[in-house]
Amino acid sequence: MLSTPNERKIVLVVIDGLGGLPHPETGKTELETAVTPNMDELARRSICGFSLPVDQGITPGSAPGHLGPFGYDPVNTYIGRGVLEAIGVDLDLKPGDIASRGNICTLDSAGIIKDRRAGRISTEKTAAICERFDGKTIEGVQVLVKPVKDHRIVVILRGSGLDENITDTDPQQAGVTPSVSNATRPEAEFTARIINLFGQQVRETLKQEAVANMVLLRGFSSLPQMVTMQKMFKLNPAAIASYPMYRGLAKLAGMHVLDTGLTLADEMETLKYNFAKHDFFFFHIKGADSAGEDGDFARKVSVLEEVDVLIPAICSLEPDVLVITGDHSTPAVLKGHSWHPVPLMLYSECCRPDLAIAFSESGCLAGALGTIHAKSVLPLAMANCFKLNKYGA
Amino acid sequence: MLSTPNERKIVLVVIDGLGGLPHPETGKTELETAVTPNMDELARRSICGFSLPVDQGITPGSAPGHLGPFGYDPVNTYIGRGVLEAIGVDLDLKPGDIASRGNICTLDSAGIIKDRRAGRISTEKTAAICERFDGKTIEGVQVLVKPVKDHRIVVILRGSGLDENITDTDPQQAGVTPSVSNATRPEAEFTARIINLFGQQVRETLKQEAVANMVLLRGFSSLPQMVTMQKMFKLNPAAIASYPMYRGLAKLAGMHVLDTGLTLADEMETLKYNFAKHDFFFFHIKGADSAGEDGDFARKVSVLEEVDVLIPAICSLEPDVLVITGDHSTPAVLKGHSWHPVPLMLYSECCRPDLAIAFSESGCLAGALGTIHAKSVLPLAMANCFKLNKYGA
Repeated sequence: MLSTPNERKIVLVVIDGLGGLPHPETGKTELETAVTPNMDELARRSICGFSLPVDQGITPGSAPGHLGPFGYDPVNTYIGRGVLEAIGVDLDLKPGDIASRGNICTLDSAGIIKDRRAGRISTEKTAAICERFDGKTIEGVQVLVKPVKDHRIVVILRGSGLDENITDTDPQQAGVTPSVSNATRPEAEFTARIINLFGQQVRETLKQEAVANMVLLRGFSSLPQMVTMQKMFKLNPAAIASYPMYRGLAKLAGMHVLDTGLTLADEMETLKYNFAKHDFFFFHIKGADSAGEDGDFARKVSVLEEVDVLIPAICSLEPDVLVITGDHSTPAVLKGHSWHPVPLMLYSECCRPDLAIAFSESGCLAGALGTIHAKSVLPLAMANCFKLNKYGA
Repeated sequence: MLSTPNERKIVLVVIDGLGGLPHPETGKTELETAVTPNMDELARRSICGFSLPVDQGITPGSAPGHLGPFGYDPVNTYIGRGVLEAIGVDLDLKPGDIASRGNICTLDSAGIIKDRRAGRISTEKTAAICERFDGKTIEGVQVLVKPVKDHRIVVILRGSGLDENITDTDPQQAGVTPSVSNATRPEAEFTARIINLFGQQVRETLKQEAVANMVLLRGFSSLPQMVTMQKMFKLNPAAIASYPMYRGLAKLAGMHVLDTGLTLADEMETLKYNFAKHDFFFFHIKGADSAGEDGDFARKVSVLEEVDVLIPAICSLEPDVLVITGDHSTPAVLKGHSWHPVPLMLYSECCRPDLAIAFSESGCLAGALGTIHAKSVLPLAMANCFKLNKYGA
């Protein structure tokens, strides 16, 4: 390993869903529309290009979108749906736990799924149902049942001899019965049995209810084996993120998760307050992605303008390396994540600035980086503050 | 293998440490500052871009820096410190030899390292010490002990049953005793034993000396298994380099090493004189790297201007393919090797010229190659003179 620790500091700003597509009326993307003088000025002093989250044409979920900039290969490090959901509600998963994402649903009297979401019942009602089952034990395995939001829940199996290789009980359609979970390898037969027994218990207990009378589970998964950033890169990394899922992802990578408030100003305060204590900061900004998902071009533009106002405050802390990029693109016109590479700029005193004079999809075309895989971003940031030794004699 | 021999000729000019960073006062790199009309004119007729020696953020040593342009994957072909040092003084290593880089050092009366470099004693004194041990045999293993420069030596074990997987005896700090060498796998126990016995012999023999009374060894390594360029690329390759280390690297790749003098003019004469005899020439230019390492921006600029004067002479030989690049960047402002991609241009009659009109860090941004791995340079050069067959049906 070439990593070598020193006092220099890296700030990695991840603007969730940063990349966009042109508005059909103006021909300009969200970043090109936003007035961002601070980021443009920084682009002049930075090396620019694009970050490719996974590979050409691949649209990443939130987990692979972040694993790349954290320095992991998102193809070799897979985080299952259940695990992501569990860390998204700040649950502490232990090695060996099997987590799954669940729905409270409604079955008809014949046991056929009538509504996969039980009429999107309230979080309160879902919490009350969870409480009836949470913490019970089936054949020595503890079953944790936690509410998430509306009809969504997380079910975690905790015990010995568990194995994630079992099939979903959620058929992801109405009009059929819930599926029986099957082991996809012999070692998982016990786990499938526990899940099926759990389903029977829920069905039995709730059978008098007309709605919200069953659970459907999917995405069984256990914590991935991940070498921490401390070990892999000899960093002392911290995460500033207001959404639990991103805090959870950061924790999986070994980051120290800092307490912070919900707003950008809160996150900035957290960065300032903790700046002396760590040498790597993951600074997560959620708003651009949410606006993109909602198809709200104008709101995404204004989030980007709010971010721009933040830049001088970050620069005034004088990080040795400042990287600004996203985890993936979320073009408002597509109302969802997309495969498009994400604008990227890296500032340091020795970054070798290029011809880019604006931070945007068109501006970064004049960058010297071209399109690089997201997993190369952290090594490059480390090189720029001399945290990587020379390779070879 | 797609390689197919023909009479066409490739000249690969490696300007050691070519890439740079902007001078803080002018904002221009060494290449951008140098007046290089011939290289700029060639850039107009060439395809341009950047060569990435190993990967993003990775600063290469001299060996991986050259392996790439020679067509090898520098990550899969590792050349140890001892081997590099041995070939750097023109020693002929044989397969199975274990080479190490050594220091003559000074121990105090308690056996603690007082000075790792024995006051940087003269090469002559070091040579005299080496002579006392060179060529002796320990348990059937011949130990070659050769001076390099000042306090530096090379120690080579020659015999059967040797294995490079042993730890250094050089703790790389003063105030402690020399380390005992340990095998890192069982097959290397005999080798570690020989090295420790050698250390005891040196200590015993020199114990009356107040200074320069011990050796410290590191970087134990044997010749890497390398398929030659003859075999891999069906080339008849020759090397023109005035420094032994680069001649040694070329020899490892199977190149015929041509006798040459120390100056650029000498190297040019050698190229002219031998031009009919080979179809591939590695033409190494050292000065730019040395100037960069010394932090001498102006000297690096003038080396590049000297190189530029050479270009018409090379072109007048009418090579079918002329490639100009470097093994890595050595920005004067960093006084050492760096991770930055290296300007690259490839001229041939069918190279598909691009928009680049200057050979420099900014000029090559207008090139069509973008940033390519160094190991792709040779296949591209071969394609440009029809030395690679079609792949697939």
